[in-house]
Amino acid sequence: MNAMNEPRNDIAHLGHVELLTPTPDESLWFFRDVLGMHEVARDGQSVFLRAWGEYELYSLKLTESAQPGIGHTAFRANSPRALERLVQSLEADGHGRGWIEGDTGHGKAYQFTDPDGHLLEVYYETEKYRAPEDQRPALKNQPQRTPDRGVGVRRLDHINFLGRAPATNSAFLQARMGAMLTELIVLDDGTEAGAWLTFTNKAYDVVYTLDATGSSGRLHHIAYWVDNREDVLRAADIYLEHSIAIEFAPGKHAIAQGFFLYTREPGGNRIEIATGSYLIFDPDWEPVVWTQADRAKGQAWGQPTIASFHTYGTPMVALSTPDEATDGQPLEPPAGGSREP
Amino acid sequence: MNAMNEPRNDIAHLGHVELLTPTPDESLWFFRDVLGMHEVARDGQSVFLRAWGEYELYSLKLTESAQPGIGHTAFRANSPRALERLVQSLEADGHGRGWIEGDTGHGKAYQFTDPDGHLLEVYYETEKYRAPEDQRPALKNQPQRTPDRGVGVRRLDHINFLGRAPATNSAFLQARMGAMLTELIVLDDGTEAGAWLTFTNKAYDVVYTLDATGSSGRLHHIAYWVDNREDVLRAADIYLEHSIAIEFAPGKHAIAQGFFLYTREPGGNRIEIATGSYLIFDPDWEPVVWTQADRAKGQAWGQPTIASFHTYGTPMVALSTPDEATDGQPLEPPAGGSREP
Amino acid sequence: MNAMNEPRNDIAHLGHVELLTPTPDESLWFFRDVLGMHEVARDGQSVFLRAWGEYELYSLKLTESAQPGIGHTAFRANSPRALERLVQSLEADGHGRGWIEGDTGHGKAYQFTDPDGHLLEVYYETEKYRAPEDQRPALKNQPQRTPDRGVGVRRLDHINFLGRAPATNSAFLQARMGAMLTELIVLDDGTEAGAWLTFTNKAYDVVYTLDATGSSGRLHHIAYWVDNREDVLRAADIYLEHSIAIEFAPGKHAIAQGFFLYTREPGGNRIEIATGSYLIFDPDWEPVVWTQADRAKGQAWGQPTIASFHTYGTPMVALSTPDEATDGQPLEPPAGGSREP
Amino acid sequence: MNAMNEPRNDIAHLGHVELLTPTPDESLWFFRDVLGMHEVARDGQSVFLRAWGEYELYSLKLTESAQPGIGHTAFRANSPRALERLVQSLEADGHGRGWIEGDTGHGKAYQFTDPDGHLLEVYYETEKYRAPEDQRPALKNQPQRTPDRGVGVRRLDHINFLGRAPATNSAFLQARMGAMLTELIVLDDGTEAGAWLTFTNKAYDVVYTLDATGSSGRLHHIAYWVDNREDVLRAADIYLEHSIAIEFAPGKHAIAQGFFLYTREPGGNRIEIATGSYLIFDPDWEPVVWTQADRAKGQAWGQPTIASFHTYGTPMVALSTPDEATDGQPLEPPAGGSREP
Repeated sequence: MNAMNEPRNDIAHLGHVELLTPTPDESLWFFRDVLGMHEVARDGQSVFLRAWGEYELYSLKLTESAQPGIGHTAFRANSPRALERLVQSLEADGHGRGWIEGDTGHGKAYQFTDPDGHLLEVYYETEKYRAPEDQRPALKNQPQRTPDRGVGVRRLDHINFLGRAPATNSAFLQARMGAMLTELIVLDDGTEAGAWLTFTNKAYDVVYTLDATGSSGRLHHIAYWVDNREDVLRAADIYLEHSIAIEFAPGKHAIAQGFFLYTREPGGNRIEIATGSYLIFDPDWEPVVWTQADRAKGQAWGQPTIASFHTYGTPMVALSTPDEATDGQPLEPPAGGSREP
Repeated sequence: MNAMNEPRNDIAHLGHVELLTPTPDESLWFFRDVLGMHEVARDGQSVFLRAWGEYELYSLKLTESAQPGIGHTAFRANSPRALERLVQSLEADGHGRGWIEGDTGHGKAYQFTDPDGHLLEVYYETEKYRAPEDQRPALKNQPQRTPDRGVGVRRLDHINFLGRAPATNSAFLQARMGAMLTELIVLDDGTEAGAWLTFTNKAYDVVYTLDATGSSGRLHHIAYWVDNREDVLRAADIYLEHSIAIEFAPGKHAIAQGFFLYTREPGGNRIEIATGSYLIFDPDWEPVVWTQADRAKGQAWGQPTIASFHTYGTPMVALSTPDEATDGQPLEPPAGGSREP
Repeated sequence: MNAMNEPRNDIAHLGHVELLTPTPDESLWFFRDVLGMHEVARDGQSVFLRAWGEYELYSLKLTESAQPGIGHTAFRANSPRALERLVQSLEADGHGRGWIEGDTGHGKAYQFTDPDGHLLEVYYETEKYRAPEDQRPALKNQPQRTPDRGVGVRRLDHINFLGRAPATNSAFLQARMGAMLTELIVLDDGTEAGAWLTFTNKAYDVVYTLDATGSSGRLHHIAYWVDNREDVLRAADIYLEHSIAIEFAPGKHAIAQGFFLYTREPGGNRIEIATGSYLIFDPDWEPVVWTQADRAKGQAWGQPTIASFHTYGTPMVALSTPDEATDGQPLEPPAGGSREP
Repeated sequence: MNAMNEPRNDIAHLGHVELLTPTPDESLWFFRDVLGMHEVARDGQSVFLRAWGEYELYSLKLTESAQPGIGHTAFRANSPRALERLVQSLEADGHGRGWIEGDTGHGKAYQFTDPDGHLLEVYYETEKYRAPEDQRPALKNQPQRTPDRGVGVRRLDHINFLGRAPATNSAFLQARMGAMLTELIVLDDGTEAGAWLTFTNKAYDVVYTLDATGSSGRLHHIAYWVDNREDVLRAADIYLEHSIAIEFAPGKHAIAQGFFLYTREPGGNRIEIATGSYLIFDPDWEPVVWTQADRAKGQAWGQPTIASFHTYGTPMVALSTPDEATDGQPLEPPAGGSREP
């Protein structure tokens, strides 16, 4: 809600993310052969990949880098004027970095950072995907044919940033970008340990959770969507056959009620296969607050949140002072509980 | 898109429908005991019912009437100012009927008709559902507990009106209410035989299809949502056990790709159980056009569209001059092919 | 049940089928690339294929032939002594043809025909599949890794023969092979129009249905199993994307309650993707009798049985005298209702 | 396999179990209202309950008792002669207890114990369920209508006994009852820590696992079957809404590949909702051996086996000397990790 008590609607959706990987070949294998995404372009040290249900050219820019982590995260504006309004809003805030000419698949973009230092950008002009002959779908309301190999992810669903102060970042996305806060975790001492934010009817597009290592600017995970819970279970079997360690087996989150499966791609970045959750149509939605006691109950069906969720992110950091984490779970080394490749 | 090339966003969502039924007790049984909805209020000849995932008090007003059909269809505005803008837009058009004081569960509403004569209304003030003790959900991001009886529909999904000129009605919803046209059927002679329209990220909230009987103001069906295709298949078994005739067995639509199951509630109104479909995030979406040749292929998996889809609606009308219907199917008596109770 | 009122248990299961095809390359593409089966051997004009869940080397021998149809159908005996008993029983009946030396993947086999002339065989010695390195499964209780391409069928499930007299063939399998009759169709005039028979706890392994063309020895279809209904729905999308005509879209049979999807492989043979149905543990099961009136209700959810089901089989035959078919459906040309490639 | 190298086939299937409960009303509520079973009879302190897919009158005898646990476990013989053979075999072994007259729903039965002291019985004469008017199914190949409330379990699937020596009990069931050993756990020191046994084409009907408390005659769990994994996920939500603590959230077992959900009914007995797994048709199946290293990997998707699985059973026992458990998990108090009601 802005000052005029009207929801602002300048961001259309999360567009694409740039993922950094020290093992570009293995990461490419993961997204292309295991998840079933398609390569659409290359540029320098980057490969551009798309999921079959996306109308834009791509949603993933995979860039070779010394460390894993998140490069930039891009949002498409609803119109040229919406883009102008956004830039005005962002420039006024002092987080603006300025315009770039554009990149593969989209036009000029305005870059800025969130308070935690994650690099974000907004753009409007985009290249819509036109399927080549061998990818032409049977149904004309689908941008590309349904894959018959791999997990077959449909679209980029959301990004979960780690950060020092979810509340600060959440306030920034609300005030400057028109995001709506849908769910949040508030600890007993008043700390906001997590914030779920949306620009659409989805329950969330962006999440900020507290980085228990005290670092800034890290990535918790990105999530790709499949349509059915059976697809998530099937993905778990595909991971199993590919000896890809499952960090968190399929289950149902209490917060936002997503049905999940977590692993880490070979470069080290955590990847979720997601479905379920719910849509929000209420324009005056009241954010759902989860307390420390709520979180101690674990996920929806009682599974404890795995300890590495509070500390493992990319780039990885050394843990010096193990401390109490947000869900009442003790800190543990990043790989705790999972079977690393 | 409006003249300024910006999507307008004044309607938040489809709110509720009033369904007319000559057999109120049997219709109530269907929605409550078979679909698993809950009664929340009664007023005069009307019973108000809700699905478990809805944040407002109800989505169905079931009203006793000599004939089945649709009473009114209500949309919630995004804000008080959005409501004002909508009313200005509608008054200017000449389709306005004026304000009503309100009804169970919502405040003042502005009533108007679409060009085909269906009664519509917009409102902003609404009563949010607060679950009584025995309906309190385990998860606080859910308005009501998940039902463990019946089909367990989650929310009202869309309404499909029959009408003489889908194109005219489609244009009205776009121009006056800010709807976005997402898919449409255009016959070889240029007739627009169907239009799918949305106010949200859903692929459609309102559908207009050609009434092959030449009637105006009729209802084709309303649809309630379930989260999984398995839920639709389970619903078919529940119908089977209750001797509720299935008009169109579970399948996948080509248009909008919804996974469907159709029956008629005891009062005669056609009811769909729906899931699947897709979300649209593209603000400059290009409507998908289906030709007569496309439609002749039937539904997504080749099932022919059943003949009664082009002629059966509520209130029922006598068929005098059987004629070619839109999908290349001959007209047939309403009950053709289904097992009536 | 035999004379001593004890179930006989000499057949362990349906082992493999030999399918004849005039288009071997295209048929191989269908089974390997679309269904996700694996080639394990070649011999002369035959290619041997397996599904991932099978403990034997293969379940499908695909043989080039001028006409499509069924070559032979093989059953594995429960033990060497069971094989001896079966041969004694079959020789006594006069349907025996004698022993063959064996074939790829199994030892000596005794060949015989059912009264309708379908070539059958029984064997005991078999080659168990040992997965090569690249097909080694993650879980040691699985013969081969789960495929991540195509439909991913798990195992051969059943065969449906067309024949002049289902009752005669059913009696033969019961008396000579120890089959149990589980369900059957009896028309108003007393004709047995279909018989479902099992050697296992599955509701059926072999089906005989009346050939409305009056032919003998034809194949109605073979069925491959997947574990979930979602897999069947996914298979329908895979067919759609490959432009493989769907003859009968996913639905639920009333008889035996299988969840089905029918197409024809490029050689013309009808192939079902099947799941659901039920297990029978009752040793004194009473066969379920379906009347003509029952069958007129169509499949479980009311879908009419498609007309081509009563007449289309392989090899194909010309229809001269259209006649009343078994489910109250008029005869129609083989391709009626489906979108042929 | 018996001495003559032929599989014996005298047991048709697991028939019913008698469960002891100190809280009969609450336990009845669980099985009837939560799982969706039906009460068919009462006798003294016992209530008899059935699942909708069972051809016999019931599968659960729920008996009031000071302690929870298993009363007796009954198997149906394949024929009167098979029953005679079984009794001869059991009498010869010295574990026989003698005949009882019969019980609600079945005729005379021979009682005996396994080496661990669990009370078992075999019978042949049984009462088949005939549905009353309000439970008559739409499809005649189904004993009872599909329930539209609760979890809707279809049939009793298996029983898992705890015991001091799984190997001894496994050998007994193989030698005396003709069971086939399908999978087993062998620890590094040679101890057989678990044995999966079957009388049917199912991968298992009876399981013995090592009781880490050193007790005899206890129950680990009984399992009821649903047809789809979605049904298991739905069951988890039903448990959640009923505040029934989930001991082990839905997941996939490595051993036998069942898809599971574990809770404890109000009387304290552990109950599984199960689906998945696989069928065995191979008459000379080679048992699958799982090593300690295999088990350390956890369940199929990497979830660690919960600690209470090795120690919690009914009746409950006090833990004195915490010791190493079979899967490399330390012993913990029974309730460890779960949210008790």
